[in-house]
Amino acid sequence: MPEFLHLLSPTKARKRFLSAIPQAGSIQSEIVPTEEALGRVLAEAITAPHPLPPFARSSADGFVVQASDTFGASPSLPAYLVIIGEILMGSGKTLTLESGQAALIHTGGMIPSGADAVVMIEDTQSVRSDEVEILNPVSVGENVIPEGEDIAAGEDVLDVGIRLRPQEIGGLMAIGVTNIPVMHRPKVAILSTGDEIISPSAEPSPGQVRDVNSYTLSALVTSAGGIPIRYGIIPDQYKELDRIAQEAHTASDFVIITAGSSVSARDITADVIAGLGKPGILVHGISIKPGKPTILAVADSIPVIGLPGNPVSALIAARLFALPVIHQLLRMPEQPLEARIPARLSLNIASLAGREDYVPVLLESTPDGYLAKPIFGRSNLIFTLARANGLIRIPSETTGLMAGIVVEVVPF
Amino acid sequence: MPEFLHLLSPTKARKRFLSAIPQAGSIQSEIVPTEEALGRVLAEAITAPHPLPPFARSSADGFVVQASDTFGASPSLPAYLVIIGEILMGSGKTLTLESGQAALIHTGGMIPSGADAVVMIEDTQSVRSDEVEILNPVSVGENVIPEGEDIAAGEDVLDVGIRLRPQEIGGLMAIGVTNIPVMHRPKVAILSTGDEIISPSAEPSPGQVRDVNSYTLSALVTSAGGIPIRYGIIPDQYKELDRIAQEAHTASDFVIITAGSSVSARDITADVIAGLGKPGILVHGISIKPGKPTILAVADSIPVIGLPGNPVSALIAARLFALPVIHQLLRMPEQPLEARIPARLSLNIASLAGREDYVPVLLESTPDGYLAKPIFGRSNLIFTLARANGLIRIPSETTGLMAGIVVEVVPF
Repeated sequence: MPEFLHLLSPTKARKRFLSAIPQAGSIQSEIVPTEEALGRVLAEAITAPHPLPPFARSSADGFVVQASDTFGASPSLPAYLVIIGEILMGSGKTLTLESGQAALIHTGGMIPSGADAVVMIEDTQSVRSDEVEILNPVSVGENVIPEGEDIAAGEDVLDVGIRLRPQEIGGLMAIGVTNIPVMHRPKVAILSTGDEIISPSAEPSPGQVRDVNSYTLSALVTSAGGIPIRYGIIPDQYKELDRIAQEAHTASDFVIITAGSSVSARDITADVIAGLGKPGILVHGISIKPGKPTILAVADSIPVIGLPGNPVSALIAARLFALPVIHQLLRMPEQPLEARIPARLSLNIASLAGREDYVPVLLESTPDGYLAKPIFGRSNLIFTLARANGLIRIPSETTGLMAGIVVEVVPF
Repeated sequence: MPEFLHLLSPTKARKRFLSAIPQAGSIQSEIVPTEEALGRVLAEAITAPHPLPPFARSSADGFVVQASDTFGASPSLPAYLVIIGEILMGSGKTLTLESGQAALIHTGGMIPSGADAVVMIEDTQSVRSDEVEILNPVSVGENVIPEGEDIAAGEDVLDVGIRLRPQEIGGLMAIGVTNIPVMHRPKVAILSTGDEIISPSAEPSPGQVRDVNSYTLSALVTSAGGIPIRYGIIPDQYKELDRIAQEAHTASDFVIITAGSSVSARDITADVIAGLGKPGILVHGISIKPGKPTILAVADSIPVIGLPGNPVSALIAARLFALPVIHQLLRMPEQPLEARIPARLSLNIASLAGREDYVPVLLESTPDGYLAKPIFGRSNLIFTLARANGLIRIPSETTGLMAGIVVEVVPF
């Protein structure tokens, strides 16, 4: 397939790619303890085995009463109720409250049978140890959290595809779900090609550079919930790359290959990807900068991405095209929440119409809000990104952005 | 110390608290492989042992030349140069280029001595195998990334306190730094108190509820880079809580106690915290909702926080007051980047002036941007937060927010 004959927009490219990846996927689920499931993705919906709260509770410290006993009460004409005891926290012993009676209750305490409201302690006055003055009336249900207010028994509380945060873990614990089915982490093969690339631990000879992409992409995959499997550095030779790519394709749920930087090296990568299986290459060349030579393919149900060799291009393109694959393999919803930080642009940025540009910026806090300072480096080397904490997306219909305008920065 | 006599604003409370925690801290550093350091925090600044790129490189596929040989070249009157070879990727063999000569070079290839520019392949035409036509002139340095353009030798490339992202890991690999000093993860003791609280794996009797706070706070601590150490569920008895709090205080870098929900249980927690060491309680009560009864203390250099027992209050207050402590213990910069998602508010929210409110919202994507739907629940139970993906902060000078206005939502 000739490269770049027809460049797709990033959105169209991603759509064509994701829709060709089988929805069922190759990923199985496993049972893990809920307390170790932070960041994991639910493989089955969770249903509440009982209501939450499991019983009506007081939302205040005070006296639990029958509301009708307090009607008309005022500081000048209080209602007098007989104190029949105290609701002890966590105690199963339940009083039964009758008209004319009150019991001391604490926040979270269980509402006894017969009672229907709680008078806050500040609306009461102690008279004797067995009698309390009610200074203001309460209505039925006041200061009471009814049984099941948070969730009802049998309610679906968490959906498939939810990535678990502290609050979901807490919610599961609250309903006694201490083990849960989560998706296996997808195995993502990472192949770094290029005759000039050497291991980071080696000393480079003239003309050689250390491997960066294997490690940035591994870290990105890890942070997205996948397991990176590095297949090392592969020379720009069809036979060797093909052998290792086949091996990675068989053993993984997703394959990412960064191409060597020369035209011939890129051609080799494209040929190898095309040969991995059907339907093969779906997108070759995207109207985006950086990341134009990106290849998106599906080979016998396994997604395969060919990324440019430049570390900045590879990492930005991986965020745009590899992260959604991992999310889809994990059955996460298609549209995750995208945080955007509004910031004023510190200087003009030129851009080509018809191409979506991503520019790394350093956000600086000022008294007027954030200032976004573009980090240019024609070299586009890796420390450009290490100095950045955000990316500006310049839409394809725009020919540039003026200094001073407010842009939306993607935290990075 | 009497509770709530003088409520501090969240900002003042946090400042008073953080400034009382020793800067030097108790946290030591350790050496880890860079490839396993995602999310860890650098304990020492990293200096580049050599420039990056380590040699001048081509940023294009084409022919490397002496720029002066191309001056005046045009499609109608090309410059003719003798091809003396090809710069092989990663090869240490260096040609020396003289006037009138050119060599084939690939993106990333090393600029040979004598050469000072690269003509892109599209600005050339092949004539014979040993001669190339240059159709357009290049200036000195054109399409060349000079040695050290990204970083110079000896340059401080990464500061103490940086939390490592994929790009920093890649940058470190690029300069051959394969092992790095990172801060130990702070040990954070978590104590959950309350006579009504039982383990999530137990079956609650009437009046009992399962422990949520131990697990939400553990997950929060983990995600912030700390190691949670759970001390279990402790009854509302001074002696027992004091014994376990002393033990946790001795063994940890930071202690978090969630109080029982009754007044007397909160008093016990405050007394225990006050007795742990000097200077003791610095803040007791904050003008915030939820989270008002929060206690901030430092006991013999160890930060201690007493949180309300309500799971929503505890988690929101922990985000505001416990996360900055972990960041400070890790020597991270004081002001992390705070992402804000602009969204239209779906309905009115009332708020008390003089109090900062945090309201959980569900952000929904609409054609006009995000809509923020407040999730009210007077019960303030944990699934309120599980249903939310953001928090709205209502500043203390505001008495409420009107439906339709654009608010800034903190992703949650």
